[in-house]
Amino acid sequence: MNNVFAHRRRQLQARLAEEKLDRLLITHPADWYYLTGFTGDSGALVISREAGKGAALVTDGRFVAQAGNETNGVKIVQQGGALYPAVGKFLAAGRGRRVGFDSGQLTVAQHSELLHATGKRVAWHRASGLVAGMRMRKEPVELAAMRRAALLAGEVMEAAARMLKPGIREFEVAAEIEYQMKQRGASGAAFETIVAFGERSALPHALATGKRLRKNALVVLDLGAILAHYCSDITRTYFVGRASSRVRGWYRAVLEAQTAAIAAVKSGASCGEVDAAARNVLAGHRLDGYGLDRYFVHSTGHGLGLEVHEDPRVARGQRKVLEPGNVITIEPGVYFPGVGGIRIEDDVAVHENRTEVLTRVSRDFTEI
Amino acid sequence: MNNVFAHRRRQLQARLAEEKLDRLLITHPADWYYLTGFTGDSGALVISREAGKGAALVTDGRFVAQAGNETNGVKIVQQGGALYPAVGKFLAAGRGRRVGFDSGQLTVAQHSELLHATGKRVAWHRASGLVAGMRMRKEPVELAAMRRAALLAGEVMEAAARMLKPGIREFEVAAEIEYQMKQRGASGAAFETIVAFGERSALPHALATGKRLRKNALVVLDLGAILAHYCSDITRTYFVGRASSRVRGWYRAVLEAQTAAIAAVKSGASCGEVDAAARNVLAGHRLDGYGLDRYFVHSTGHGLGLEVHEDPRVARGQRKVLEPGNVITIEPGVYFPGVGGIRIEDDVAVHENRTEVLTRVSRDFTEI
Repeated sequence: MNNVFAHRRRQLQARLAEEKLDRLLITHPADWYYLTGFTGDSGALVISREAGKGAALVTDGRFVAQAGNETNGVKIVQQGGALYPAVGKFLAAGRGRRVGFDSGQLTVAQHSELLHATGKRVAWHRASGLVAGMRMRKEPVELAAMRRAALLAGEVMEAAARMLKPGIREFEVAAEIEYQMKQRGASGAAFETIVAFGERSALPHALATGKRLRKNALVVLDLGAILAHYCSDITRTYFVGRASSRVRGWYRAVLEAQTAAIAAVKSGASCGEVDAAARNVLAGHRLDGYGLDRYFVHSTGHGLGLEVHEDPRVARGQRKVLEPGNVITIEPGVYFPGVGGIRIEDDVAVHENRTEVLTRVSRDFTEI
Repeated sequence: MNNVFAHRRRQLQARLAEEKLDRLLITHPADWYYLTGFTGDSGALVISREAGKGAALVTDGRFVAQAGNETNGVKIVQQGGALYPAVGKFLAAGRGRRVGFDSGQLTVAQHSELLHATGKRVAWHRASGLVAGMRMRKEPVELAAMRRAALLAGEVMEAAARMLKPGIREFEVAAEIEYQMKQRGASGAAFETIVAFGERSALPHALATGKRLRKNALVVLDLGAILAHYCSDITRTYFVGRASSRVRGWYRAVLEAQTAAIAAVKSGASCGEVDAAARNVLAGHRLDGYGLDRYFVHSTGHGLGLEVHEDPRVARGQRKVLEPGNVITIEPGVYFPGVGGIRIEDDVAVHENRTEVLTRVSRDFTEI
């Protein structure tokens, strides 16, 4: 793996040359993991354009030994006091005046501390998304990890569906889901598991409560696992009991929207086009004079990788064009406050000439 | 509970008057939960100084229904496009030119978006830590919740210790710990559980791996639960087998340091004094000509509450003076790279005339 990290750092150094930056400050844990393998959650990484100089990681005493074990070819610098004054001091003492930073990964207060510590020794330049841009194009080794994470999530989804019996509580299902993930080797959940029974399924982000499952209820399960650092994210909606034709109709509409959006995923398509594919299908289904798209209150999906939400965003009007290596979720849904909601989500990888659905769980309407 | 939230908002309004701010922008989820009860993870809260105006929460379609259910007396504003341009537009359209923001809770990019959207309609003022300052002084209802979270963590620690048999893997123990938390009603772990066997215990932040427990090994378990929104955080170090007198000596030194630091916790003492109490004890224990404080590579503790790390920091030189309602961890440790480490951590509440240890698990040296 150390070759992988060193290779990525060399790619980034080439980008720094293009951007005419001497050094890049990396302040986001997923970015520094991607470039070095360091899994600690406090620190800052400095990449110099000059190949000889390589990389330096400033971190505190808790992480120094760990950083030494986890990285190769990275200089580990133990901070004395607070992090950002120490990073500023390190930058001021080094060579290379033009330093880039990601304005989306640094707070206003941290930025002030850096400016104060470096004074005129550093000219700061906004250089957002350089690492995020690399991370968007997954390498084969990353796609292999994401396939495994997606399959694991699918197995857990199927195990969770088998638990859905009237009387069970939402948090019992959530606890079992996260336990099953770990039993299968996941380091943890990629996000807090969503378990929503009945009318709570109308809340797109309903975290598990003590609510008990009753008969004739929608159930939304939205879960993801982290396996070997990579995230998966899957949603299925089940019905416990016998569904009305109205609920069946909603489910069909969402499934059709999801199928259309997955079909729209291809190298060269824009994220906005993928989002529109889902939205247009829902608009064609009517309820009380409105298109169902009115009840689709979020975007169609998001990038997935080391983080559960990363670039690209699959939302209305997004111009970013998909390219091989992108992995995104496709997750349209409809939500009727006080009644219930339906969402279906899969993880999709973009290849040169085909689209690969990583999650493998039946999407058929299922009554339990 | 809604009275609690409204009461806090009124307290904050009084602070805004003192700070001569017309409005305060709140961009941190734990802060907006504290003031409104909203548990969603995307949005921004605006508190106006004028009592009549109250509070407004800008959020996206995923969270609008949920925000309506969870809050009372808060105007919910659904954003059209991206969050910060929408927040800027909302602020520009409202009254009250002097708007405060927390520079530690806003990225440079978000700040730029706000400046762009508000133009000259808003004069921005850094007003960091207003809500964090309130959150540091726990109310009785919060202390009651934290006691329960701490007791729960203690029960889980004792259950985990019973699992420590040669052959078990670190991640199996971690999975069981998190499962036991949820079975006891926790909404989840407050942080990724640390399980470190043998020489891995020398890494203060060792996340669980596939490593199996062998006989004659140190075991560090560091876990915390979130119960009714409040966090706990506890560490115990066990020995599986028969410990050498050297290991016993280290354990005694850490326990003595922790005891001294807990004794130093009182209303009126500074956080730096508490940190020094632990460090001085370790300095009095020698190894190869050095004080053991050389192997204590992190700070003594941190504030605890809605978040697992919050104000105050209990670190070298911190001048913040403890006052009733503060809840902090006390967690000295020593770490010998390649050999092993020992840490003992408890959660402590500061009262007017006494100190309350919230976590209740034996700290005696325990061989399993």
